[in-house]
Order: sequence, then structure tokens, then C-alpha cells
Amino acid sequence: MRRVYLDNYAACPVLQEVLEAMMPFYRENFGNPSSLHSWGDKAREAVENARENVAALIGASPEEIIFTSGGTESNNMAIKGIARALRKKGNHIVISAIEHFSVMHAARTLEKEGFELTIVGVDNNGLVDPSKVREAVNEKTVLASVMTANGEIGTIQPIREIAMALKGSGVVFHTDAVAAAGTMRLDVNDLGVSALSIASDMLFGPKGVGALYVKKGQRIMPLLDGGVQEGGRRAGTENVPGIVGMGKACEIAVSEIESRAENFSSLRDKLIKEIPKAIPHVRLTGHPTMRLPWNASFAVEFIEGESMLLLLDQEGIAASSGSACTSRALKVSHVLDACNIPAEIAQGSILFSIGHETNEGDIDYVIEKLPPIVERLRKMSPLYDKFLKGGGQNSDL
Amino acid sequence: MRRVYLDNYAACPVLQEVLEAMMPFYRENFGNPSSLHSWGDKAREAVENARENVAALIGASPEEIIFTSGGTESNNMAIKGIARALRKKGNHIVISAIEHFSVMHAARTLEKEGFELTIVGVDNNGLVDPSKVREAVNEKTVLASVMTANGEIGTIQPIREIAMALKGSGVVFHTDAVAAAGTMRLDVNDLGVSALSIASDMLFGPKGVGALYVKKGQRIMPLLDGGVQEGGRRAGTENVPGIVGMGKACEIAVSEIESRAENFSSLRDKLIKEIPKAIPHVRLTGHPTMRLPWNASFAVEFIEGESMLLLLDQEGIAASSGSACTSRALKVSHVLDACNIPAEIAQGSILFSIGHETNEGDIDYVIEKLPPIVERLRKMSPLYDKFLKGGGQNSDL
Repeated sequence: MRRVYLDNYAACPVLQEVLEAMMPFYRENFGNPSSLHSWGDKAREAVENARENVAALIGASPEEIIFTSGGTESNNMAIKGIARALRKKGNHIVISAIEHFSVMHAARTLEKEGFELTIVGVDNNGLVDPSKVREAVNEKTVLASVMTANGEIGTIQPIREIAMALKGSGVVFHTDAVAAAGTMRLDVNDLGVSALSIASDMLFGPKGVGALYVKKGQRIMPLLDGGVQEGGRRAGTENVPGIVGMGKACEIAVSEIESRAENFSSLRDKLIKEIPKAIPHVRLTGHPTMRLPWNASFAVEFIEGESMLLLLDQEGIAASSGSACTSRALKVSHVLDACNIPAEIAQGSILFSIGHETNEGDIDYVIEKLPPIVERLRKMSPLYDKFLKGGGQNSDL
Repeated sequence: MRRVYLDNYAACPVLQEVLEAMMPFYRENFGNPSSLHSWGDKAREAVENARENVAALIGASPEEIIFTSGGTESNNMAIKGIARALRKKGNHIVISAIEHFSVMHAARTLEKEGFELTIVGVDNNGLVDPSKVREAVNEKTVLASVMTANGEIGTIQPIREIAMALKGSGVVFHTDAVAAAGTMRLDVNDLGVSALSIASDMLFGPKGVGALYVKKGQRIMPLLDGGVQEGGRRAGTENVPGIVGMGKACEIAVSEIESRAENFSSLRDKLIKEIPKAIPHVRLTGHPTMRLPWNASFAVEFIEGESMLLLLDQEGIAASSGSACTSRALKVSHVLDACNIPAEIAQGSILFSIGHETNEGDIDYVIEKLPPIVERLRKMSPLYDKFLKGGGQNSDL
């Protein structure tokens, strides 16, 4: 049976060159970067070289990069670390309604500490309106966070416009670029952000490592206290092989972003064009054009998404209903809810996320296998039965 | 030139079998454990298998193990997570004076949040007196933390006795077992602790992964908010290769602890016996007998430790002055200070930490190379000059 992996948003294979770069740091150059001897020197050089590559991906200076254990830690550190550092200045933060839970729940934790939280809504395509972010700001606001792009629905946000709207307000602006980095050209100065999160595994690097850009001079409280690693901002022995892998993944991304974006987009567009043709009552979620090159997300009406994933898996196809971080929470996605997609439709959400190893045959296979699965599930669906009895017209359900 | 690595407390090579266990999870079984398809299933099984191996190392149940990004995160999560969860019950915590900075500074952060902190001192050998821990407890105390063993000076603490002293007080007892696990048989039930931290890299596993044992029913607030991984207690995509590596390292440790402890101790004892014989005015730091099998730590009087490390490095020998986490902080160790070692002696501290690849020839090489280095440095030392002018008697300086 053909095996088609279209769940690269959840996880993807590490690039061969990345793995090769990491390997010498497990058993040969295994030193601790803090050590004052030649083993330490080699590890330290490797970490600093990786830091340069990460910085180059986003137009930052190396000293503005803090290595973390992944996107979730980067987001937690940004939200909690900046808000707590500025607590004396104010206790209000602003985020969008479609943030990843590592931003959303970090903000909820701050609420328990006495911060006030304003959540700015999005339109039906998942777009944040810059003027609404500006309107949410008050004299107590210290931090705003809007993601660069949403991994579940693919929508790319107008980050530069939001930064411009916030200009002069004194509010620190953070963006979660975890889903965007690697397939979109990003430059922190051009975007106008003071903090930006990225994760190695979304760049075809290893899991368990990420980075946070913090603009020079921007205050931030550590999330992990202890040793003086990362300039005293993030304690813990550096994950040298992981950091080296992330550095290599960033180096590759810098040279490949355009070709990657082009290849992924053409595969994405085939799914976006063909799936609604092959299956009635399917809607694209997210923005029709301002979307991530790798993201093809749909809501299939009159069925339940988890059953669709299980039947696809039986055909050798891996997809997801949205974010893997919440796939086991068994709740309707807060992102689809924010886009005003009713719960009974949102439950039929499906995300195909394209990666390095995806080819056109994979896409054709999905376009062939998905329609009979949907048909089979709809025959069992009480919703569909009700729909047919109502005359079979596509309602605005 | 011979290359002798005796800085295994800072970093050590990953075991070959560990690396082999990790490899398939980078490019073949690369799935996300949260995904609802076969790629996810394989990753999830691997993580759960690793969890069983980690639990087995410390006599816990798998559901009591939370994977983290390392020892520092485990300690931060234990200290902050338990204290914050119990904040309504009380706002006082107790730690020892020789805790690793990931415990010490986490406690300091809690102080800024309104917690009160009592630091219990140690004797000249670095030992904590259980009755003093009990005396430090008051009606507001919610958490006490004393490390299982100190990595800088090797002293093993009477954890079971401290747990017994705390019995009936209602205080949650955490121990940082990062330095101890892998060369000491540990059982959480036997020790009587409610939380225990370990790190993969101290078990000859990969860097960037650790675990926190939290006793069933014990409340703890997450440090990283976001997805529902690790039972909702630690968000973030699981570092599957790292976790698999840690699991393998624990599995190997379970079968090797006794032989490892025996081999390491015999090499350690040779250093402890021969170095003070070969060099005048050297004192062993830490406890003479209750000490970690891999730890030989000394204070060499009348010299400055960093110069000693640099000259040793020139001879191909890697050692450290104590904890790598603080080696770049350029301060005298708080651990040696707590043991009443004067700053002018503590600055000559040196730690030889033994690992899997250490052999007797390495030890002989150090015993041969160290004395002339010390002699050379002393000739340049104003302290030594003063000492000689005073009649050359070993003072209680």
C-alpha cells in the first residue's frame, strides 16, 4: 500500500544533512559549551555558529537569539517573560483569538497572576485587523502578540501593519512565527517586532529545540532559572546536537525558502482546487490567498473528522484535524470557532500539511482516496440524513 | 598527547547503544505522539516505553513521570510548580544551602512572588542535618527541597532521614537527583519523596531531555502552558529521539548501577588517595565517605583554579572547578562557601568527574601531570609567597 504523509505540521523527518551535522556532537564533540577546556571550546563554537545561522534566517543579530526547548517554550518565555518584566509598567496584554495554545494558555496563566487580557477576534478567513489590535491597547498595555501565520488554517497575518498600528504606543510586539518560518521570508526589522518565536522541527530540524528572538535592550524575565547559559536568560545545559541541527536547518532554509514555497504551493493548490471539486459540501478554511505554502485545510460538512482520519490512515494516508498539540483534547478547534465556523462543521475539519518529501503522486492519491471515505462516512451521519431530507441544498449550516 | 576527559559532570559522550536507539526516530519513525495515525502510534509507543524505563530506574509508576528538557527544567518545574499550586495553603519554602542554581534561583524567583525562603546550612563536609530541615518548617511551609547528592563536592545527603523528619508536617518533599541518578540505586518510595528530578545527560543519555517524578495525586502547576502533552502538565511536542535516548540510558543504568559505582569508586579513590600525597596543601572537599562514586573534588591552596584548568587543558586533561552551569559566572562556589571553605582556598577548587570511558591510565596521567602544574602556579602566587614567609606551616587559612 502506498504511504502518504501529509501531516508535516505535526512532525516531519529531519533533513539528512541536518542529521549528519548533528551526529558528531553525540559521541565525539560531546563537550559542555560552558567548560573551560578544548572539549568545551568545540561545543561552544558549534552553538555560536548555529546561533549565527538562526539569526540570519530572521535578520537578527546572534546575541538577540535565545535557544529554547521548542516553540512552546519560546512562546511561554516571550509572553510570560516580557509581561512579568514589565509588570510595574502595566498589567494588560493583547493577543489574537487564533493564537496557538502555547501563547493563549500562557496568557491565561498571566491572568491568574493579575494581568488583564484582551483577545482580538478575526474575520471569517482568520485575519486579524491591525486597527482592532490598536484599539485593544490601553494605558496599561505592555505586550501584544499576534502569530505570523496560523498552522491550522494557514492564514498569514499582516504583521508589519500591526506593528505599524502599534507604533508609538510603547507596547512590546511579539509574533509566534513557528508555523511561518522556513517557507516565508521573515525579517524582524522589516516586520517591526520586538520578539519572535521559531521552532526547529517546523524547519525540518530536530524536535526539542527552538529559539526566541528578543530585540536588543528588550527586558525579559527568564522562565528557567539556574546557570548563566544564554546570557543568563535561559538556564540549562545547552542541547548541543539539537542546537547544531537547528542551525543547519536554518542555514538550509535561508537558501531554499523560495523554491520550497513554490513547490509546496503548487501541491497545496492542487488539493485546494481538486478536493472541493471531488467532494460536495467541502469548504476551504482560512484565507483563500494569504496562506502558508504548505497548508491545505478544509471543513468537510456532515461528517466527523476523527473517523475520516482513521479511514485515511487505513489507506496509508496521514493527515490531521488541525493542531497535533490539541488533537487529544477532543474539543472543537478554537481557531475554527474564531472564524465563525459552526461546531457541527468544524468537527469535520481536515488539514493536509505538505513537507519536503511530498510529491505530486501523494496529492493524486489523496484526491483519489478521500471522496469514497467521505461518502461512506456521510451515509452513517445523522446530520447528512437530515440535510438530504431537507432537500439536499447546501445550506449555510 | 594523551587526551584525558575527567569532566563528565559537565558533559559526557552518549552511550553507543543509546545513540543507536535514538537514530530511527529522526527520519523513519519521525511522527508526533499526539497524531491519530500510524506514524503517531509508533512515536507514542516509543515515548511510553521510555517512560516505563525511566520509572523503573527510580521505582515510580510510568504515569508519575513527566518528560522535560533537562535537569534545570525539572528543578524549575518542581520548585515553582509545586509551590505555586499550594500557594493558598502557605507561602514558605525550605531548601539547603548547597542546592544547584536551578533550585536555588527558582526559589529566589518565588521570593519575588511573595514566598518566604529558609535556606538550611550544611556542615563542613556539605551534609544537611535532617533535624535542621524539620526545624525550618513552620505552619506556612508547603515545600522543602534537598538534593540527593551534590555534583560539585560529591556529598550524598540523608534523604530518607530528611523525609522521615518531615513526616506528618504536610510539607511536600522534593529532591534533585540529577547528580545521583545512574550511579546510586534510588527508589522514590524508599526515599519518601513526592517529587524527584533527573537528567538524561548525567545518565550518559542525550542532552536536552530530563524527567520529573511527581507522586500520584501531588498537585503541580505547569511551567510550560500549551497543548495537552504529558497529561496536560508539560506542553510542547515531545522530543521523541531525546526521550527514547533517555529511556535507553535508564534501561542500561538499571542493569549497570552496581558495576558502574564500583568501577567509578575505585578510580575516584585512587585520585583521593594519591593527589593529596603528591601535592602539599590540598584538601578533599565534600564528605570523605558519603560521596558520589564519580566525584573527586579538591581545594588546592595557594593557587587560582582557572589557571590550573588552563594548564591541565594544555596537557590534554579536561577537569572543572565545579559546576559547568556557573563556570562562566566567575564567582566563588556557593557550595564551597556553605561548607565554610574560605574564598581564597575555594578559588583553587578542582573537580575530576569520572565517566564511562575513564580508565586507570587516565587517572595515573592526572596524578603525574597535576603536581608540576600546581608547583608552577604557586611560584607565581602572592598567597603562597606570604605563606612561605610565615614559616611554611599549613595554616587554617
